[in-house]
Amino acid sequence: MSVIDVLCGRPLPSKDEQGERLGPLAGIPVFGLDALSSAAYGPEAALALLISLGAMGVAYIVPITVSIIVLLLIVYFSYRQTIAAYPQGGGSYTVAGKNLGPFAGLLAAAALMIDYVLTAAVGISAGVGALVSAIPSLEAHTLVLCLGILVLIILVNLRGARETGVAFMIPTYLFLGTLLTTIILGVVKSVAASGHPVPIVPPAPLHPVTAMVGAWLILKAFASGCTAMTGVEAVSNGVTAFREPVVKSAQRTLTVVIGFLMVLLAGIAYLCRAYQIGATEPGPGYQSVLSQLIAAVVGRNVFYYLTIAAILLVLSLSANTAFADFPRLCRLIAEDGYLPNPLAVRGRRLVYTAGIAVLGVLSGALLILFQGVTDRLIPLYAVGAFLAFTLSQAGMVAHWKRTGGPGSRIAMLVNGLGAIATTATVIIVTVTKFRSGAWITTLLIPAILLLMYSIRRHYDQISEQIADAPPIDAGEIGKPIVVMPMFYWNKVARMGVEVALALSPEVYLLHVETHDERLEFTDRWTELIAEPARRAGLPTPKLIVIQSPYRFVINPIVEHILNLQKTMPQRQIAVIIPELVEKHWYHYFLHNQRAKWLKAALLIKGNSKIIVISVPWYLRS
Amino acid sequence: MSVIDVLCGRPLPSKDEQGERLGPLAGIPVFGLDALSSAAYGPEAALALLISLGAMGVAYIVPITVSIIVLLLIVYFSYRQTIAAYPQGGGSYTVAGKNLGPFAGLLAAAALMIDYVLTAAVGISAGVGALVSAIPSLEAHTLVLCLGILVLIILVNLRGARETGVAFMIPTYLFLGTLLTTIILGVVKSVAASGHPVPIVPPAPLHPVTAMVGAWLILKAFASGCTAMTGVEAVSNGVTAFREPVVKSAQRTLTVVIGFLMVLLAGIAYLCRAYQIGATEPGPGYQSVLSQLIAAVVGRNVFYYLTIAAILLVLSLSANTAFADFPRLCRLIAEDGYLPNPLAVRGRRLVYTAGIAVLGVLSGALLILFQGVTDRLIPLYAVGAFLAFTLSQAGMVAHWKRTGGPGSRIAMLVNGLGAIATTATVIIVTVTKFRSGAWITTLLIPAILLLMYSIRRHYDQISEQIADAPPIDAGEIGKPIVVMPMFYWNKVARMGVEVALALSPEVYLLHVETHDERLEFTDRWTELIAEPARRAGLPTPKLIVIQSPYRFVINPIVEHILNLQKTMPQRQIAVIIPELVEKHWYHYFLHNQRAKWLKAALLIKGNSKIIVISVPWYLRS
Repeated sequence: MSVIDVLCGRPLPSKDEQGERLGPLAGIPVFGLDALSSAAYGPEAALALLISLGAMGVAYIVPITVSIIVLLLIVYFSYRQTIAAYPQGGGSYTVAGKNLGPFAGLLAAAALMIDYVLTAAVGISAGVGALVSAIPSLEAHTLVLCLGILVLIILVNLRGARETGVAFMIPTYLFLGTLLTTIILGVVKSVAASGHPVPIVPPAPLHPVTAMVGAWLILKAFASGCTAMTGVEAVSNGVTAFREPVVKSAQRTLTVVIGFLMVLLAGIAYLCRAYQIGATEPGPGYQSVLSQLIAAVVGRNVFYYLTIAAILLVLSLSANTAFADFPRLCRLIAEDGYLPNPLAVRGRRLVYTAGIAVLGVLSGALLILFQGVTDRLIPLYAVGAFLAFTLSQAGMVAHWKRTGGPGSRIAMLVNGLGAIATTATVIIVTVTKFRSGAWITTLLIPAILLLMYSIRRHYDQISEQIADAPPIDAGEIGKPIVVMPMFYWNKVARMGVEVALALSPEVYLLHVETHDERLEFTDRWTELIAEPARRAGLPTPKLIVIQSPYRFVINPIVEHILNLQKTMPQRQIAVIIPELVEKHWYHYFLHNQRAKWLKAALLIKGNSKIIVISVPWYLRS
Repeated sequence: MSVIDVLCGRPLPSKDEQGERLGPLAGIPVFGLDALSSAAYGPEAALALLISLGAMGVAYIVPITVSIIVLLLIVYFSYRQTIAAYPQGGGSYTVAGKNLGPFAGLLAAAALMIDYVLTAAVGISAGVGALVSAIPSLEAHTLVLCLGILVLIILVNLRGARETGVAFMIPTYLFLGTLLTTIILGVVKSVAASGHPVPIVPPAPLHPVTAMVGAWLILKAFASGCTAMTGVEAVSNGVTAFREPVVKSAQRTLTVVIGFLMVLLAGIAYLCRAYQIGATEPGPGYQSVLSQLIAAVVGRNVFYYLTIAAILLVLSLSANTAFADFPRLCRLIAEDGYLPNPLAVRGRRLVYTAGIAVLGVLSGALLILFQGVTDRLIPLYAVGAFLAFTLSQAGMVAHWKRTGGPGSRIAMLVNGLGAIATTATVIIVTVTKFRSGAWITTLLIPAILLLMYSIRRHYDQISEQIADAPPIDAGEIGKPIVVMPMFYWNKVARMGVEVALALSPEVYLLHVETHDERLEFTDRWTELIAEPARRAGLPTPKLIVIQSPYRFVINPIVEHILNLQKTMPQRQIAVIIPELVEKHWYHYFLHNQRAKWLKAALLIKGNSKIIVISVPWYLRS
């Protein structure tokens, strides 16, 4: 068993694909973790903007959360319909592309790709950030922890989808279990106390009122709260990973994820108002909203620490959603020729290895660039997700318009409403976060579009040049002229000459004279080559000696071959390069690498009429 | 003009070699800088050990310096004789190897190689250290400064020997001019004052007496002072770089270098006693012996700063001696097969590029490892140089014994004396510095010897397998079986099939079925390949389809070819690999690199009966 087998598991045959598919229970951790974990930062992001309103701000969290839940419901129904309409995997890329044209599809894809990279980076950095604020002594190792978790997630994903599901199930259900318990307990206590429960551990005192309520401020808070909705797209994009019946499995997963998310958001909002919990300023004395809430409801006991641990774990593992979905998205785009081919090839464990690698490298680079600090990454976030939502829902409107039939009007209305709501959201998010980072996303999207179009153009150009090949012209190519560079006379060179004579009656041996080396065999030419060839009834090879005053060896050979080709443009020239094959890589330094350099130079400067024949000589050890 | 032309100069033809050679004037900076610059730290190293003797220690510097000068004279006469006896370059490697056997030669070579790497590293770090103690604000950039100077020296050396000489002439002669002026002035003043001159700037007060004079202490001081002799070997090792008459030019250079060095050492010792100048403890208040001396004789004026600047410059440039000599030594060893071949090849500017690169990397690594701190490097030093001196002189004794003739007895006596003196020195240096670093050198020397012997064994094994090739057996090899992997039907594949048919009547086309790709042309097989081949009167190629449930492509092809070869062990198998050649390197990511992987796999797993034919298809841009 090799190291790769241990790390990534044994290779799986293609026919195992069915077995690797997911049911709803395993699907939730894989595709729902991102959406669910955002309950841990969405409400806090909204409350953070309401700090200056004091107790009034805490009151406003309820209507804001209600709006978000309504938006979430609209998006939920939209994606339910999408899953049914596109059981082959209906992410925004497919839906927008099929209904609004390729440009809309690529725009959605570019937006989503950015969002997935950010999801991976932000998820990990937020998790590590929370861990570090719980155990401050780890702070110096923030980046190392981030990268360690990233490597772990990459390895788990390279093992394949099913094992990923199992590995992430425990923390996900621990997170849901503890948080729902807290919420139910809190609601019961609150109702029992007629809406004014007494906190076990009092939350941080609210900020004094320093601002007036304004529509703009409420809109900003709403936009920030919407970060809780990133990740909702994942299920519909990953439909093909689900077990048969595919549509039902995926829809059930989506229902469970959105249902839980709504309960979490509603519960958190209700309890925040009931217990008067607001966000605290970052810096010393900072305490997360969820930490205050849990402490207020259950106190700082073992259950508190278990819940916090589950939150930390789920936050950092939410990056996994990106790893489950990004490669699948890339594969769809690659199959349409807008991203490199290798992204469409399934690896040894039936996962899209190249996509996992690309996401790993990009999110790792982001983490290193921002030193694992979440705050600087957050403003780049959400623009992509909502742009994709909008395009997806606009695409569904066009879809219903085209298909028609019973119920299509209501479906169109739902998707139309969703499109309008998410359009408004994407505008608000972009405008309010523009200066603090959304401008980067705004620049990256056209850059990615440009890249995708130029990749597609490249493939089109190649296809134009090599596709539609006619049947072979068997008589066209005659025997090639064989050319072989000759440095010393030894068994390697001897074998090359023999191969040359077997392939063609026209053989040229090239020797470059540099004064640093002597052509030892010129004196023995007749004995070694000419006479045996004559005896076998073969034409004698020609010896060509090239002077090289500057001691260059590769260039004179290549130039001679190119000139030869020019004088006989119709003839194929086969260059024989005898090569010593070493047993060990470290022997590389013991020999000049002429064979390799010569091959590379011929490949770069040559043309289709010049073919290269490697004749290996294997050393016994 | 390319970037390489600008940095390293245009390539030089081999016939220019004569013009690139050096006269004594240019030879001193190239081969003498190391020896001369050691006057700046040799006396100080001796005085540092005498600190505890107070004024008595300062008095002892004169007899110690006299001993060193006597040793230097012995070594001088020895190397003069060596240059005359070995005009092809008579370093310790040659002299010890030719007269005492290959082991002694390699031992000397290993010792010298270590010493050259240390010379380069110590020279640069000492120079930068001095610069940094003059301008303390630069201290944070010590390592960057070291590496910057290293890169500069590497570039200057890659340009070639003559230009190196010119570039280093000015600082060398400035160093000699200012220091000799100071010494002459100081001696005149001292004699005028009957041996008790009044210092313009008084030197640091001498350390109170805290130890007794002992033979061991004096021996240690003598051993430390001997670091002033490292670098003396350089001229005789580099004889071939001198202009005709080679022997006279080299001897004259050696005479001038040793002469100046002796004057410097004697002058410094005399003035130290006259002005009562001792070494100061390292740390705050530290002042180098030369700095105190110059200030005492001429005061702290412009001349003082000019002299200090010259010392700094020459110290850091003394590394250049190593760069002039190390590659030449490596070349000699490589020509004997104990070091990799490429070290024996002259580059575009007639210098041994590979040797310069190796020294650059090793000394750069040392500088990084020790963060550019000289103190930690110094104890590793000098062991190698004196071991080489000893072996060289012992070799010369054997040489005179063998050649005999008039004067050989006296010459033998001189070399014998030298051998005994340097043997004593190498023992003292190793013992006194063992714990502080000489143990590293003591371990490295056998390691290098082991490496050199295994390299030689490797070359011997290869030579045994491939040398003494008999004349070709022109009838032995028949037409090869041609095998070509087939992925898609396009113009690239079509060209491959045509080449295959031109080379052999026996053609197999291999297709691997992975479910990820479809063999589009199986339906059109007759139309595309079979029928045109039949019409041209050629045998039809065979199509072989291999199932690959794990989606591996390379392995099944390689295994099929290896099996085919096993069934027909006498036949040559030519594997045709059609290859798309991209215009730009960044297109690499746009294609699976199957052609490259397949070639690599065949090279690793194949045998001499399997040859690989690359058929390139060039894309138009």
